[in-house]
Amino acid sequence: MKKIAVYPGTFDPITNGHLDLINRSTKIFDELIVAVAKNPKKALLFNVDERIEMIRKITKDNSAVKVESFDGLLVDYVNKKCSSVLIRGLRAVSDFEYELSMALMNRKLDSEIETFFMMTSELYSYISSGVVREIASLNGSVKCLVPEYVEQKLKEKFSKET
Amino acid sequence: MKKIAVYPGTFDPITNGHLDLINRSTKIFDELIVAVAKNPKKALLFNVDERIEMIRKITKDNSAVKVESFDGLLVDYVNKKCSSVLIRGLRAVSDFEYELSMALMNRKLDSEIETFFMMTSELYSYISSGVVREIASLNGSVKCLVPEYVEQKLKEKFSKET
Amino acid sequence: MKKIAVYPGTFDPITNGHLDLINRSTKIFDELIVAVAKNPKKALLFNVDERIEMIRKITKDNSAVKVESFDGLLVDYVNKKCSSVLIRGLRAVSDFEYELSMALMNRKLDSEIETFFMMTSELYSYISSGVVREIASLNGSVKCLVPEYVEQKLKEKFSKET
Amino acid sequence: MKKIAVYPGTFDPITNGHLDLINRSTKIFDELIVAVAKNPKKALLFNVDERIEMIRKITKDNSAVKVESFDGLLVDYVNKKCSSVLIRGLRAVSDFEYELSMALMNRKLDSEIETFFMMTSELYSYISSGVVREIASLNGSVKCLVPEYVEQKLKEKFSKET
Amino acid sequence: MKKIAVYPGTFDPITNGHLDLINRSTKIFDELIVAVAKNPKKALLFNVDERIEMIRKITKDNSAVKVESFDGLLVDYVNKKCSSVLIRGLRAVSDFEYELSMALMNRKLDSEIETFFMMTSELYSYISSGVVREIASLNGSVKCLVPEYVEQKLKEKFSKET
Amino acid sequence: MKKIAVYPGTFDPITNGHLDLINRSTKIFDELIVAVAKNPKKALLFNVDERIEMIRKITKDNSAVKVESFDGLLVDYVNKKCSSVLIRGLRAVSDFEYELSMALMNRKLDSEIETFFMMTSELYSYISSGVVREIASLNGSVKCLVPEYVEQKLKEKFSKET
Repeated sequence: MKKIAVYPGTFDPITNGHLDLINRSTKIFDELIVAVAKNPKKALLFNVDERIEMIRKITKDNSAVKVESFDGLLVDYVNKKCSSVLIRGLRAVSDFEYELSMALMNRKLDSEIETFFMMTSELYSYISSGVVREIASLNGSVKCLVPEYVEQKLKEKFSKET
Repeated sequence: MKKIAVYPGTFDPITNGHLDLINRSTKIFDELIVAVAKNPKKALLFNVDERIEMIRKITKDNSAVKVESFDGLLVDYVNKKCSSVLIRGLRAVSDFEYELSMALMNRKLDSEIETFFMMTSELYSYISSGVVREIASLNGSVKCLVPEYVEQKLKEKFSKET
Repeated sequence: MKKIAVYPGTFDPITNGHLDLINRSTKIFDELIVAVAKNPKKALLFNVDERIEMIRKITKDNSAVKVESFDGLLVDYVNKKCSSVLIRGLRAVSDFEYELSMALMNRKLDSEIETFFMMTSELYSYISSGVVREIASLNGSVKCLVPEYVEQKLKEKFSKET
Repeated sequence: MKKIAVYPGTFDPITNGHLDLINRSTKIFDELIVAVAKNPKKALLFNVDERIEMIRKITKDNSAVKVESFDGLLVDYVNKKCSSVLIRGLRAVSDFEYELSMALMNRKLDSEIETFFMMTSELYSYISSGVVREIASLNGSVKCLVPEYVEQKLKEKFSKET
Repeated sequence: MKKIAVYPGTFDPITNGHLDLINRSTKIFDELIVAVAKNPKKALLFNVDERIEMIRKITKDNSAVKVESFDGLLVDYVNKKCSSVLIRGLRAVSDFEYELSMALMNRKLDSEIETFFMMTSELYSYISSGVVREIASLNGSVKCLVPEYVEQKLKEKFSKET
Repeated sequence: MKKIAVYPGTFDPITNGHLDLINRSTKIFDELIVAVAKNPKKALLFNVDERIEMIRKITKDNSAVKVESFDGLLVDYVNKKCSSVLIRGLRAVSDFEYELSMALMNRKLDSEIETFFMMTSELYSYISSGVVREIASLNGSVKCLVPEYVEQKLKEKFSKET
C-alpha cells in the first residue's frame, strides 16, 4: 500500500529549509503532498497561486511530490487525501511547543492521524520565510536561503513595490 | 519495499508511553525494531535480557514489532538492519534539545539516516522509566503507568531487594 | 479570615482548562474572583458581557466563585477586592516566561501581592481559547474542549457571521 | 478550617531564596510544614538533623512554620499531615519541566493534592543550594546568598574537611 | 585601534535595563554606538527623534556613547561604522532563540560581524519597553523601571492622549 | 590598553566548536586566555597536562591565545590575570539557563567582571566534548568534529584502554 504523507504550511515563500525537508521525507514516504494553506491569518507576500507555482517549479524533478492548496480543518483535508500522516519541521524550542499543542489537538480531532517531526538541518535552522522576506525587502542577498527561482521572484516582487 | 524503522532506547522498564508510541508507529511502518541498548552508561534496574523479555511479552500481539539488543554506534546498527529510519519520542523541551543534537550527529555520521520524532500522548507525558522506578521503589502504585506484567516484575524486583 | 484569590484573564471564551483550574483552586481558597479583562489589547470574539455571562452560567453551582470585569492596573483591582493572591495557570514553557515577568512586575508594583501558579491538567494542556476559536470558526467540533453552553454560543456566533 | 501547606525539599543547606519563599507563603497559609527529605538520592553535605536544625534556627520567629523530616512517597506524607497543598518554587525553564511532571504525577497518585508554584524573587533567582556549596567549598563568600547562621555552618564544615 | 561596538534596538522608550547594558559594555569597548531603528515593523509610541533625544539626554555623561538612527540591513550599517561587533541583551529563553537565529543570519550576510550577548542584570530582567508602555498607559508608576527623564516623557505622552 | 578576555572550560578534549570560538574572539580581544579547569567535578578522559598540550598545539599560530590551567574561584583567577571579561559559548536553551545563573553569580562575587556570550556556529552546534568522547569510544569517526591532532590522541587513548 502506498504510504502518503501531508506536509502542510504557508510557504510564503518556500525556503531551502522546506526543500531539504521535502527531499528527505520522500526517501521514506511514497508520496508527499505539499499542502499550501490558502488563507492563513497572517499577511501574505505571495498569493496562493504564486506560492504553489514556485513549489511546483522547484520540486518538478521529484516525482513523489504533489503540490495542492487547502483550507478548512487540516484533519479533514488529510482524510480526504487517504493519508494519516502529517510531516512538520522543528527548528527551535518555540516551534516545539506550538507544534506539540497542534499535534495533540489534531489527534483529538482525529485519533488516526499521526504527526511526524523532522529536525531541520543545521545548515537551514535559522532560515524562516519571515526572515527571507525581511532581508529581500531590504535588498539583502537571499542567495543561500532560497532556490534561485524564488530569489528572482522576490526581486520582482520588491522592485514592483517601489 | 518493506519500510523498516528502528526505535532505540534503554526501556528500564518499558512504560505505557513507550507502548503507545510502538503501537502508533506500526500503523505507519511495516516493521518496527525495538532496539534495547545493552550497556548504557547509567545504572540499570533490569538487565538486558529482562528488559527484552518484558517488551516481547507486552508486544507479542503486534506482528510488526521485533525486539533486539544492540551495542556500538547506533547508525551502524541501523544500517545492518537495512533500515534508514530512527523513531524517537518527544515529551518536553529538555528532551527536544538532547534529541536534536543526537539527530544532527547521527545524520553527520550517516547522511542517509533520518530521525522521525513523535509526540508522546498527553496521557503519558509525565511518565518516564526513572519516575516509574522511583515510585515502585517507595511502594507506590504504578498501575496506570506501566503494563500489568511490568508492574508485577517491579514488585518482584523491589521485594527481593529488601 | 476569609482567603480571597483573584483569577484574572480574558476568557474569550472560557474553556474546560479554565474551569478545571477554577474548581481546583476553590478547594484551597474560600472565595475565587474570576476577573474578566474588559478591553485587552487583542481582538475579541465575545464582548465582556457575553464572556461574564458564560462563566457565571457554568460556575453557578460553585458558591465560592464570583465573576466580575476589571480594567486598569491589575494590582489596584486586587487591592480593592481585599485580596493579595493572584492565581494563574501554566501550560508550557512559553507561558512560563511571560508569567514570570508579569509576576515580578506585579510584585514590584505592590510587594504584598503574591502570584500562585497552578499546572493545567494534562488533559487540558493543549486547549487555549485561541485554538477553540479557530476550530469553531472552521466548523470543527469543540465538544471536549469547552462546556456545552459555550459550545452552543460558539455555534451561534459563527453561524451569525456567515 | 486551618489551611496547611507542605513545602518539600532537600535544603542542603537552606538559602535566602528558600527563606523568602517560606515567609511569603505564610502570608497566605495558616501553617507551612517545611518537609526535609531524609535520604534523597544525591550526595549530601549536611545530614538531616543538621539541615532541620538550621531551618528551625532561621525560621524560629515565624510561628506559622513547622520543620520536619520525611521519607517515602510525598503524597502519603502530605495526607498524614491533613494537608492537600504542596508549595514549590520555580526559578527557570528547566525547573519548570521537572516540576510540571512531578505535579502531574503527584495528582495521579492522589487527585486531592494540589501543587502551587511560586516564582523565586529576582534577587534570589540564581541561588541554588548546589551553587552555595560550590562557592563555600572554594572559600568564596556566600554572605548574600544564605542567612548568617548557615554561612557559619558552611565555614565549619569546610574547615573540618581540610 | 579603537574597538567600536554597535547596540541596535528600537528603544521605545529606553529602560533601566538598556541603560545598565550600555554602561557595562562601555567598560569593555572604546566606543558604543546605540543604533535606533528608524521604522521597525511594530507600532511605536515615540518617533525616532524622540527616542534618540531621550537616549542622548540620559547617556550624556558617558563619553563613549554615540546615538544614531539607522535603517536598511543592520550588517551594512555596522560596516559603514567601521565596526564588526554587535551587542545584544538576553533576558529569557524566548529572547535567546530569536537572537540566536538573528546572529546566525547576520554572520551569514557578513562573516566578519560578531554578535556578543550580555545577560540583563537580575534587577532589570522583567523590564521591557512594552511592559513600561503598558504600565504607563494605565497610570501605574514606572519610577524604578526607566530613568526619571523618560518617566516624565511617558507622562506627557499619555496625558496628551487623553 | 590591552583588552584581555578569559575563556574558561574543561576542554576534555577541545573540539572544532571551541576552536571556532577562540578564533572569532581573538578578532575582538587583544589577548585570549584559554583557562583549563584543573579538577572539575566530572570524570575526565584527559588529564590537565594533556588537555593544555592539545590546545597549545592547535592554537600555536594564533599569537593572541594563551593557554593556562586554573583552580579555585573563577573570579579570583580573572582578577589575577588583570582581565574583567569572561567569554562563554552558547549552543542551546539548556546551556543558556546554566550560563545565565553562572554569569549572575560571578557578577555578584565581583561586580567588575562581565560575561560575554557568543553563539556557536551552526556547523558546530551539536558538538560537545561528551559526544566526541562517546563516538570515539565506540570507534566512530570524529574527523569533522575535532582537529586532526585531537582525533589522533583520542585513538591512542581508546586503543590503550582496550
